[in-house]
Amino acid sequence: MDLITMQLAADKYIRMALEEDINSEDVSTNAVMPSYKKGEVQLICKEDGILAGMPVFERVFTLLDPHTQVERYAEDGQRVEKGQLLAKVTGDVRVLLSGERTALNYLQRLSGIATYTHTVAKLLEGTQTKLLDTRKTTPCMRIFEKYAVRMGGGNNHRYNLSDGVMLKDNHIDAAGGVRQAVEAARAYAPFVRKIEVEVENLDMVREAVEAGADIIMLDNMTADQMADAVRLIDGRAQTECSGNMTKENIQTITELGVDFVSSGALTHSAPILDISLKHLRVLD
Amino acid sequence: MDLITMQLAADKYIRMALEEDINSEDVSTNAVMPSYKKGEVQLICKEDGILAGMPVFERVFTLLDPHTQVERYAEDGQRVEKGQLLAKVTGDVRVLLSGERTALNYLQRLSGIATYTHTVAKLLEGTQTKLLDTRKTTPCMRIFEKYAVRMGGGNNHRYNLSDGVMLKDNHIDAAGGVRQAVEAARAYAPFVRKIEVEVENLDMVREAVEAGADIIMLDNMTADQMADAVRLIDGRAQTECSGNMTKENIQTITELGVDFVSSGALTHSAPILDISLKHLRVLD
Amino acid sequence: MDLITMQLAADKYIRMALEEDINSEDVSTNAVMPSYKKGEVQLICKEDGILAGMPVFERVFTLLDPHTQVERYAEDGQRVEKGQLLAKVTGDVRVLLSGERTALNYLQRLSGIATYTHTVAKLLEGTQTKLLDTRKTTPCMRIFEKYAVRMGGGNNHRYNLSDGVMLKDNHIDAAGGVRQAVEAARAYAPFVRKIEVEVENLDMVREAVEAGADIIMLDNMTADQMADAVRLIDGRAQTECSGNMTKENIQTITELGVDFVSSGALTHSAPILDISLKHLRVLD
Amino acid sequence: MDLITMQLAADKYIRMALEEDINSEDVSTNAVMPSYKKGEVQLICKEDGILAGMPVFERVFTLLDPHTQVERYAEDGQRVEKGQLLAKVTGDVRVLLSGERTALNYLQRLSGIATYTHTVAKLLEGTQTKLLDTRKTTPCMRIFEKYAVRMGGGNNHRYNLSDGVMLKDNHIDAAGGVRQAVEAARAYAPFVRKIEVEVENLDMVREAVEAGADIIMLDNMTADQMADAVRLIDGRAQTECSGNMTKENIQTITELGVDFVSSGALTHSAPILDISLKHLRVLD
Amino acid sequence: MDLITMQLAADKYIRMALEEDINSEDVSTNAVMPSYKKGEVQLICKEDGILAGMPVFERVFTLLDPHTQVERYAEDGQRVEKGQLLAKVTGDVRVLLSGERTALNYLQRLSGIATYTHTVAKLLEGTQTKLLDTRKTTPCMRIFEKYAVRMGGGNNHRYNLSDGVMLKDNHIDAAGGVRQAVEAARAYAPFVRKIEVEVENLDMVREAVEAGADIIMLDNMTADQMADAVRLIDGRAQTECSGNMTKENIQTITELGVDFVSSGALTHSAPILDISLKHLRVLD
Amino acid sequence: MDLITMQLAADKYIRMALEEDINSEDVSTNAVMPSYKKGEVQLICKEDGILAGMPVFERVFTLLDPHTQVERYAEDGQRVEKGQLLAKVTGDVRVLLSGERTALNYLQRLSGIATYTHTVAKLLEGTQTKLLDTRKTTPCMRIFEKYAVRMGGGNNHRYNLSDGVMLKDNHIDAAGGVRQAVEAARAYAPFVRKIEVEVENLDMVREAVEAGADIIMLDNMTADQMADAVRLIDGRAQTECSGNMTKENIQTITELGVDFVSSGALTHSAPILDISLKHLRVLD
Repeated sequence: MDLITMQLAADKYIRMALEEDINSEDVSTNAVMPSYKKGEVQLICKEDGILAGMPVFERVFTLLDPHTQVERYAEDGQRVEKGQLLAKVTGDVRVLLSGERTALNYLQRLSGIATYTHTVAKLLEGTQTKLLDTRKTTPCMRIFEKYAVRMGGGNNHRYNLSDGVMLKDNHIDAAGGVRQAVEAARAYAPFVRKIEVEVENLDMVREAVEAGADIIMLDNMTADQMADAVRLIDGRAQTECSGNMTKENIQTITELGVDFVSSGALTHSAPILDISLKHLRVLD
Repeated sequence: MDLITMQLAADKYIRMALEEDINSEDVSTNAVMPSYKKGEVQLICKEDGILAGMPVFERVFTLLDPHTQVERYAEDGQRVEKGQLLAKVTGDVRVLLSGERTALNYLQRLSGIATYTHTVAKLLEGTQTKLLDTRKTTPCMRIFEKYAVRMGGGNNHRYNLSDGVMLKDNHIDAAGGVRQAVEAARAYAPFVRKIEVEVENLDMVREAVEAGADIIMLDNMTADQMADAVRLIDGRAQTECSGNMTKENIQTITELGVDFVSSGALTHSAPILDISLKHLRVLD
Repeated sequence: MDLITMQLAADKYIRMALEEDINSEDVSTNAVMPSYKKGEVQLICKEDGILAGMPVFERVFTLLDPHTQVERYAEDGQRVEKGQLLAKVTGDVRVLLSGERTALNYLQRLSGIATYTHTVAKLLEGTQTKLLDTRKTTPCMRIFEKYAVRMGGGNNHRYNLSDGVMLKDNHIDAAGGVRQAVEAARAYAPFVRKIEVEVENLDMVREAVEAGADIIMLDNMTADQMADAVRLIDGRAQTECSGNMTKENIQTITELGVDFVSSGALTHSAPILDISLKHLRVLD
Repeated sequence: MDLITMQLAADKYIRMALEEDINSEDVSTNAVMPSYKKGEVQLICKEDGILAGMPVFERVFTLLDPHTQVERYAEDGQRVEKGQLLAKVTGDVRVLLSGERTALNYLQRLSGIATYTHTVAKLLEGTQTKLLDTRKTTPCMRIFEKYAVRMGGGNNHRYNLSDGVMLKDNHIDAAGGVRQAVEAARAYAPFVRKIEVEVENLDMVREAVEAGADIIMLDNMTADQMADAVRLIDGRAQTECSGNMTKENIQTITELGVDFVSSGALTHSAPILDISLKHLRVLD
Repeated sequence: MDLITMQLAADKYIRMALEEDINSEDVSTNAVMPSYKKGEVQLICKEDGILAGMPVFERVFTLLDPHTQVERYAEDGQRVEKGQLLAKVTGDVRVLLSGERTALNYLQRLSGIATYTHTVAKLLEGTQTKLLDTRKTTPCMRIFEKYAVRMGGGNNHRYNLSDGVMLKDNHIDAAGGVRQAVEAARAYAPFVRKIEVEVENLDMVREAVEAGADIIMLDNMTADQMADAVRLIDGRAQTECSGNMTKENIQTITELGVDFVSSGALTHSAPILDISLKHLRVLD
Repeated sequence: MDLITMQLAADKYIRMALEEDINSEDVSTNAVMPSYKKGEVQLICKEDGILAGMPVFERVFTLLDPHTQVERYAEDGQRVEKGQLLAKVTGDVRVLLSGERTALNYLQRLSGIATYTHTVAKLLEGTQTKLLDTRKTTPCMRIFEKYAVRMGGGNNHRYNLSDGVMLKDNHIDAAGGVRQAVEAARAYAPFVRKIEVEVENLDMVREAVEAGADIIMLDNMTADQMADAVRLIDGRAQTECSGNMTKENIQTITELGVDFVSSGALTHSAPILDISLKHLRVLD
């Protein structure tokens, strides 16, 4: 995660997470460590997986004290193993103790997402279908979770409602039909936006193609329907398939030739990767 | 979730979640619905589970427009079933469309946590051991996730580092021993705080009891060690056991007579409960 | 401007503008009007032009007091004339007096932009070329100024650096060439982004087309060069021309057949439209 | 602009302007420049004028990365010429690319105001009349625009509604007359405030003088009326003339002997001064 | 306190005070009152004094719940007595309980300041000397404390460093002398500012008068010195005396003929006025 | 005050206090000191007392300019004397002048609280009763004032409504009795909270003990009643006495054997300790 994104889009959330965990003071830490002592603690992986979130983990500590140093032995996107030493954190013992939980809460969750994403992306290897995330992210975690998807080998769909056009069932109902919805979007949206429309059957596919949709999302169709849809579209739009795609069932769509498959599970249901901070040593 | 908590501790996160999803405008919605129309949409459960987060779901819409109305057919803490109509949301169609994803992101996640918590809490029914959450919550989600744990039948441990004292391995290392840590906390912490200390073996248990700890957390001990520890403590402190407790293994500790068992998995690894907004109708 | 955009993207700026003008109290108003009296004031146009910003004008007053009422006699996008009564504002006299300057500062500037934009857009009528704005907006005014451009008959280019890809001279230098820049963007950007590249000569045009750019911006070229470029591109990408386009010189490009022309002057150099609040009457 | 003003009164706006332009990440820059490289870019003047805003221009970059260095070859308040190299900016190439537009949006606008102000102030040289700005500034830009007026050779009127007393037509209507308004202000306002009253004819002038106004603003009077007013006031109050004063008509008042003339056009209608960042070089 | 001041200058502090007292939930209240019940509580004065802060007291409750109603039986600026019923607050019992402390913290402190101010102002009755406050206010309380001074019969000096010019010993040292300081201020400050200079002896008084200071503050002078200074100034500037003025010693200066006397004690050392909320009744 | 508390819980208030005092610029300082000069100023004690707030005093200056240096000659908690040099502050003269008042406003108030607290705590020396503060702190000052109490030798009660349970008269009324209130709290509050209940007579004491309250607060009882209550409780709960305890009357309770006595006066009615910044010298 680059420094500009960190400062403009991530820091405010990290600060709020720290304030959520310390609203007046860290009583336990201040009790046992009333003044500055330098210390070191080890970041140890306790489960195999894909690492994601090291810059965020580090940022938690440097926001508390810019003198904190994190020596990394593994980087985001890499496979890590149970027992592996991932980093050493050195600095004011109080900073190490007070930042621990918030730093790990980010790192474990992002690594969990990267690990899950990687498993799913592997199942698509060798096909022409790319794996996408969705907007089904945890509130106040999108900038982090979409980053974790990339680290796990997935790709990002639009970031939010302002920077992409997706006409879903409820929009189509509101507009009065697929064609009307696509035309309204074409007229209204800035010309740099591609227009995506969600369809549920072949008639809607046909209407979407004719209306000039840039991307057609096949939602909750059967494999046969999707195969028909891809043939019908015939390259006139990009195709995305969607609908409760998880690592258990994603292989059902690899033969269909769709360009993209999107999965909410990447961000809403991945379990964390277990990582911990251990072996605090006070350095005289 | 009461109104005061909502306003003082929850609203700021909900607003940030909305701003995360709409940084300029909702292009798709404004394209198909350029002016006010009244509409209605249905909240439908797609999976069996325990509901949690209805007040947050509703708040997303009323923050966007206080005139939005949510008619609820189920309440937090109740068991809900696949196919069940949970609520109807009525208001400006643009509000319904623009708030949908953020509202569902909260509701699905909180219901997922309540559902998982409920499963675990059931396994402890009839024992003297109560289920606790931890601080392993998603950043910027603690106020919501701890609420969901309660809705699922769990209990809350301390809220954050400021309102509870827990002396963990790293604090004990920093203090130079269990006794020193407990004494430092006794001297430093406001007298309304109970003092909890984390121990890993019977020697530490003995030291903690003698130092006057209010709560002793048995961390990553075997069942036999915990049984010995409970006997040794003999009611002189409350007992909590901890360490990768999940629904798969929590039954191993139900016979031990510990007062509490805490599980990070409740908040860090529960999958969501699938719930969706469907059947938007433009009224009149 | 719809209510959701207002609340999520505009209100924070309007509040800051009010706080900029009143950091403790409005001394003059509180001196002459120590308690509530109901009053009315008239919004009068003092110059011919296109109106834009009425919802923002109104929002200034309703943020100060939700009971303030604005009765509008003209709407955004309409032509208004010197002397025309545009609205009446009724409410607490102190709110009318204290909100006046901030409300007018928005309305005058947005109407100025709409008026200037309309003049330029008229010059393109009957051609296939559409008028675009740029990111050369006043800091903290983008959500308002881009709205004013639309009210004046212009179209919005991308909103910001996050929701559109534009590879300018400095990006191309950094990437090592047009092709490398386009390929890097193709690999990195979410697939819903169109990729635009800025070129300065025909070689670059050719390279951009071959690299598969979606939009090619012809920057500071002569009319002849642009004509050649359009022929060369031949519909394989959308075309935009740019470079100090103002109402004085935009007609030089109307024959070229480019799809879009962008003009920073719309937002950075439009003079305001003179509008004022007059004839305060204390009611009762 | 001194460091304290920058931090307490300007930084919040600059940060918001940056967040306005980058809500998640700068996609184009991150695509072509995935990691740190040091670079340099030149700030070049493209039009003759008066420079203003260099500390703000610099602050945009140093807020993004405090290691960015700006070597200045011209300072605020100086005359600059087309083609002149104004500064070199050196630092992380991503910071140079991502901060460019926001930095220029400030610098161009402030220099535009300084240039326009300078033109008007020149017309008053040799007279006893000083040029003032107004509160007709762009929302969220006042701290910057009033600074630019000073750099162009103008003077600042009050900053906002809290720190100066000005009794305008609407206040006088609300108070029931000039005398009542001045007396109310004298009784209410902190004694460190001077009291200014806006008048439209000689009767009001007489009343204002007798009521003890410190400053009398002659609003939209003819030159003859103003001459009479100055004679009538005869040094018993300071005088200010006002009312659509622009560079085209300001000379009409130079012979009148008023102390001040205020012009909203300085801040609400000055076109920008064209300045750009060019010739990005990646430094090894 | 008028609504505009409340919203633009006071609400942010009140909200922060509430968040300071409730960072997650009010545990005690939610335990005993799990759902909405309507209740009433009485605001009772427990000490004689001058009331100040009723609008702030009320705002605390209406920010928590706009349906809360406060029926007032006394108003700011009035003398109140031990045992007097000041108001009844009716609304959600949880709001009454959770807002109590914050509301009283404001009301007690502001009434304490008004009471102390009133005592001092009484000592100046019949003289030509008016009582002023200073900038020695509690951090984040200035808007409230300066209001309380007015309610107690005092007058406000400048609000802050931006809206008044006061040249103190350290400024004079920095400028190189009284004359230099006054001239620098005359040249730099907006013309609506009066210029005040702090002097310690008659030579400085003379220099200040000659330099054209608008207000001369006689700091820590003896009564004889002040009398001489007033004679020397002879109406050519307003006069203010200052220096540890409290109710114990302020009478020493009433004969001197100074225009103003300022006292930091009004805001920095007034004890609170005891007021409490009692007799909560749950209604029906 | 440790760095983490400063950053997460104190800085936001300090920044707001600075913005309260400088909303655009410090006019006086900028007039006499238009550019950087290095200077030094002395912090001098003008009254005997206990020092508290030096880290906050220093933070005011380093937030304005991190290069400011504060050389301390006395530390928080120490006795200081009239005339004593407490510190030298060295840095940009404008920072010294602009930060002076805010820095002193914190330091004087916190030292005033520490001084008053110390006087009261001395009266309890040799008894078994410890001195506590309350939540009767100045709004937006709690983190500072509770720290000052500790520096004066007092102890902190709960921090706010979220981190301690105290069942007061109004809660008991709402719950329907002492027993009901204690049981509701036991069932609802996180198990790490001790439960305190406020009682007014011996019947309530008995009920509280039997209900298992952890702490019993004897509110506004006579000395005899309190002695009876302590005997009745007999160590089964901790005891706290409360009710208008000041330095004038606290000795009446020293013989009673209560564990704690709490005093709102420590924070709501302590006068400041007079401290000033003097002898500014411009260096070289």
